[in-house]
Amino acid sequence: MLKRYLPILTWLPHYNRRLFGADLLAGLIVTVMVIPQSLAYALLAGLPAVVGLYASLLPAVLYVLLGTSRTLAVGPVAIIALMTGAALSEVAVPGSPAYLQAALALSLLSGLMLTAMGLLRLGFFANFLSHPVIAGFLSASALLIAISQAAHLLGVTASGYAATGLLTSLLGNLGATHWPTLAVGAGTLLFLVTLRRRGKAWLMRLGLADATAGLIARAGPVLAVVATTLASWHFDLAARGVAVVGAVPAGLPPLTLPALDLELWRALLVPALLISVVGFVESISMAQMLAARRRQRISPNQELLGLGGANLAAAFSAGMPVTGGLSRTVINDQAGAQTPLAGLFAALGIGLATLLFTPLLHHLPIATLAATITVAILTLVDIPLIRQTWRYSRSDFSAMAVTIALTLLEGVEAGIISGVLLSVMLFLYRTSRPHSALVGRIPGTEHFRNCERHDTETVGHLALLRIDESLYFANARYLEDTVLDLVARRPELEHLVLICSAVNLIDASALESLDAINARLKEAGVTLHLAEVKGPVMDRLKRSDFLDDLTGRVFLSTYAAWQALSQPRE
Amino acid sequence: MLKRYLPILTWLPHYNRRLFGADLLAGLIVTVMVIPQSLAYALLAGLPAVVGLYASLLPAVLYVLLGTSRTLAVGPVAIIALMTGAALSEVAVPGSPAYLQAALALSLLSGLMLTAMGLLRLGFFANFLSHPVIAGFLSASALLIAISQAAHLLGVTASGYAATGLLTSLLGNLGATHWPTLAVGAGTLLFLVTLRRRGKAWLMRLGLADATAGLIARAGPVLAVVATTLASWHFDLAARGVAVVGAVPAGLPPLTLPALDLELWRALLVPALLISVVGFVESISMAQMLAARRRQRISPNQELLGLGGANLAAAFSAGMPVTGGLSRTVINDQAGAQTPLAGLFAALGIGLATLLFTPLLHHLPIATLAATITVAILTLVDIPLIRQTWRYSRSDFSAMAVTIALTLLEGVEAGIISGVLLSVMLFLYRTSRPHSALVGRIPGTEHFRNCERHDTETVGHLALLRIDESLYFANARYLEDTVLDLVARRPELEHLVLICSAVNLIDASALESLDAINARLKEAGVTLHLAEVKGPVMDRLKRSDFLDDLTGRVFLSTYAAWQALSQPRE
Repeated sequence: MLKRYLPILTWLPHYNRRLFGADLLAGLIVTVMVIPQSLAYALLAGLPAVVGLYASLLPAVLYVLLGTSRTLAVGPVAIIALMTGAALSEVAVPGSPAYLQAALALSLLSGLMLTAMGLLRLGFFANFLSHPVIAGFLSASALLIAISQAAHLLGVTASGYAATGLLTSLLGNLGATHWPTLAVGAGTLLFLVTLRRRGKAWLMRLGLADATAGLIARAGPVLAVVATTLASWHFDLAARGVAVVGAVPAGLPPLTLPALDLELWRALLVPALLISVVGFVESISMAQMLAARRRQRISPNQELLGLGGANLAAAFSAGMPVTGGLSRTVINDQAGAQTPLAGLFAALGIGLATLLFTPLLHHLPIATLAATITVAILTLVDIPLIRQTWRYSRSDFSAMAVTIALTLLEGVEAGIISGVLLSVMLFLYRTSRPHSALVGRIPGTEHFRNCERHDTETVGHLALLRIDESLYFANARYLEDTVLDLVARRPELEHLVLICSAVNLIDASALESLDAINARLKEAGVTLHLAEVKGPVMDRLKRSDFLDDLTGRVFLSTYAAWQALSQPRE
Repeated sequence: MLKRYLPILTWLPHYNRRLFGADLLAGLIVTVMVIPQSLAYALLAGLPAVVGLYASLLPAVLYVLLGTSRTLAVGPVAIIALMTGAALSEVAVPGSPAYLQAALALSLLSGLMLTAMGLLRLGFFANFLSHPVIAGFLSASALLIAISQAAHLLGVTASGYAATGLLTSLLGNLGATHWPTLAVGAGTLLFLVTLRRRGKAWLMRLGLADATAGLIARAGPVLAVVATTLASWHFDLAARGVAVVGAVPAGLPPLTLPALDLELWRALLVPALLISVVGFVESISMAQMLAARRRQRISPNQELLGLGGANLAAAFSAGMPVTGGLSRTVINDQAGAQTPLAGLFAALGIGLATLLFTPLLHHLPIATLAATITVAILTLVDIPLIRQTWRYSRSDFSAMAVTIALTLLEGVEAGIISGVLLSVMLFLYRTSRPHSALVGRIPGTEHFRNCERHDTETVGHLALLRIDESLYFANARYLEDTVLDLVARRPELEHLVLICSAVNLIDASALESLDAINARLKEAGVTLHLAEVKGPVMDRLKRSDFLDDLTGRVFLSTYAAWQALSQPRE
């Protein structure tokens, strides 16, 4: 029992020196690598840079205790930071103490929701986000982030969390481009893109091992941060108007108590839910991918508890909403992490850095951070997937397109909510007009196939109708229409057999429709039969009066129905 | 083409004297019968009684021109009147000119929505209202109406459109019961209930024919109206404090122009949508029942146009939202109506009454109308259906229970919206954890059945997994879990066959999951095969890269897969 809620107990007893060495190295590498992105994502959310560091400490430790993934790294991530910024800017002015308070409240609500979902085993909620909606949302959010970062690269201001507002203010301020800032930003961008594209191959040609080369190529942001900070300090770029991170308080995060402000909580309820669900989906996808590769198991509901704990920790340690991040997890994994202790070491490392080295960040240009975000985030714009979805299913594509359009035009919340609603409605619409086929016998066999696709044997007084969908409220009326239409078109009909091999559910609405069909067919002198009803469906039908009222019989197979009914009445 | 949009053209050319006689008689009977209920429903909506008459005129004529049902009678109905009152009281004070204006705006919006849904062929929207939700909503609304009418029967005031508010104000005012009013109300109630329960049998014992006896038994409200109006006039009950209808303007309805008030329209948007959908469902259910009995066809999308036209007519002739009503349609049908012309004659009759006889309504006690509503409406409380739903499906029952509870406690809109959302979510939840079964061969046959339910033949290196649900976003992740769990539990596994006989759809999310499953099984050294993929599903899979990447094959039947794979690898 204790092991179920504290997965750390399952692996810690088997810990040994070899694992310790691997984890320690991974922890060190992650420490260095994630400091720049943690700062950047805090800024993206409109928060002081140091909040990103705080959110990489205690939350990561909580996940180590509660999470089931061995190598998932938890902390601030880009999409969640964007959603956080969008939500907070609705309730407070960026930079104000109320804004910081709201960030804590958002973390708290998100933590409570994730924990509650975990305890109530509601992980399936995440399934409502279909892949096309997630992909569309990530692509559009990445574009939004890129536009917002473009302003930092140019040294101008652009405000808002929707593409139109961002673009107008960006373009309107284009004349105010600050050239030294642009030089730093564009230089960093060029360096990062080149290193990412060519770096690994080039390093391997220098004789480095594959893994090491990959890791160094990924260290681009760290190199850029060090180089531009040194340059900024040496040339005193801040005095020339280049925006820098500025004074970052040294020391461990303070203990914070989110204020009990019910009105604020109510305003943040929907954003917190969306942040929780989106964060969970991002995190669990990553965790499942890693677990499958290493043949480990993760438990979705326990993952909810892990992420819930992490966000609660963020709320009480001056943090911001967190989740399992793509890039920090990949770094952790490639650095050779074996157990969650790597995450603990990384947290300790970042803690040490926060305690001692934050003054060094004073001269770090914000444009450098913007460049690292831009390079990282644009990989999320997945054009091939968008094209592939278009080819595979117009219906899925339309959900994706609406998500992209509304995310860009109306913001992240409107985008994801409308995407979810649309994909649900499209699914219901599809199942509301189920495919059905009149089938006939393949001569000489016991097989029955669609009359329109195959050469089959049929008789006029017997109709065999195969329904290719569960019967429920959305298609109950359609079923009535289909059957009554069929009967109206075939006056010679005496027997109708509904073949239920693909009917996995008959709900109360469909049961009423079947009752109505049975009654109307009776008036028309047609007998209604069922065939191939599945076990669970039959069990349920037996709890109703339908089988008593049914004018015909329930056949085990279509062939049995054919044998009994294909001879005309004497 | 013209015939499609003006169904009147299909039957009017075949009209003859015999039909004319039947329709004229039915029209006369309907005229007399529906006047009391029209007045009552207008009062229920908080509108002047005469609005109910106006709404039975032009709207009925429009439906005659556009509708496809031969005997459906359109006018004010109880549920729609309740919803109208609830919506209007949110935006204006009952009795004020603004309230009247809002009624016109609501009719206009509802008419526009119905017309748009008809033109866009969106009749399937009504399918989102599952039978349990409708039944729950009708039962709860009937209770609400009965409580609100109880106040009129007692001669006290009770305000609000939710049960708690209504009950508190009713009970608080109980001390102020006006005994003469209660005498009229209770007397009428007793008379109506007795006539309804015993009247027909009693009249038939007097030698009347079945149909005539039934009709007279239904004429109770007319008799009660005449008798209590005469009594009220003779004893001048109004002077003794009994509420009466009062001065009703004589003359045809004025032409009204709904004001172009965008703020008002926005406030009425959701109520208008709900009124449209609920009205459509009520109307189409009735029309379908009658059409099936007379072997006629109705067209749901044309019905939307008919009801849309009727509501637009109401908006321009001082009316209120209308739909095809249960009781007025039954009266029309039993009175022998043959074509929609009966509806036209009834409209003419009510027009004549409005022109000439409204002064006679002055002394009609409101308690009489309340009694007629109460008797009519309580038949909608369908306890047996509620019990039956409980027995058949807890899931359907919970949607019904939530609809009832929220309709009573929070009002009609909250009730119906939460009912719809809950039934959709329950359906998605059910399909998100699809039933699946490992199947084995029934020895010596080509049949495969669930290993756990039957004695079957299986081999260790081959798993045959039958999925009993369409694969889509809500269950894509669950499928991954199921398959990966299975593989983790059976290390000797070499081949996995997914049997897709009950899979009617694979959406883009499920396709990605299949891709992921394929890739992970490949890493684990397990080959993935499909079997019994349906034609439409296969067509779609061919548009993706999945079949190229699939490690195994697609078998036409499970038996073919068994033949190919059941021998262990050499």
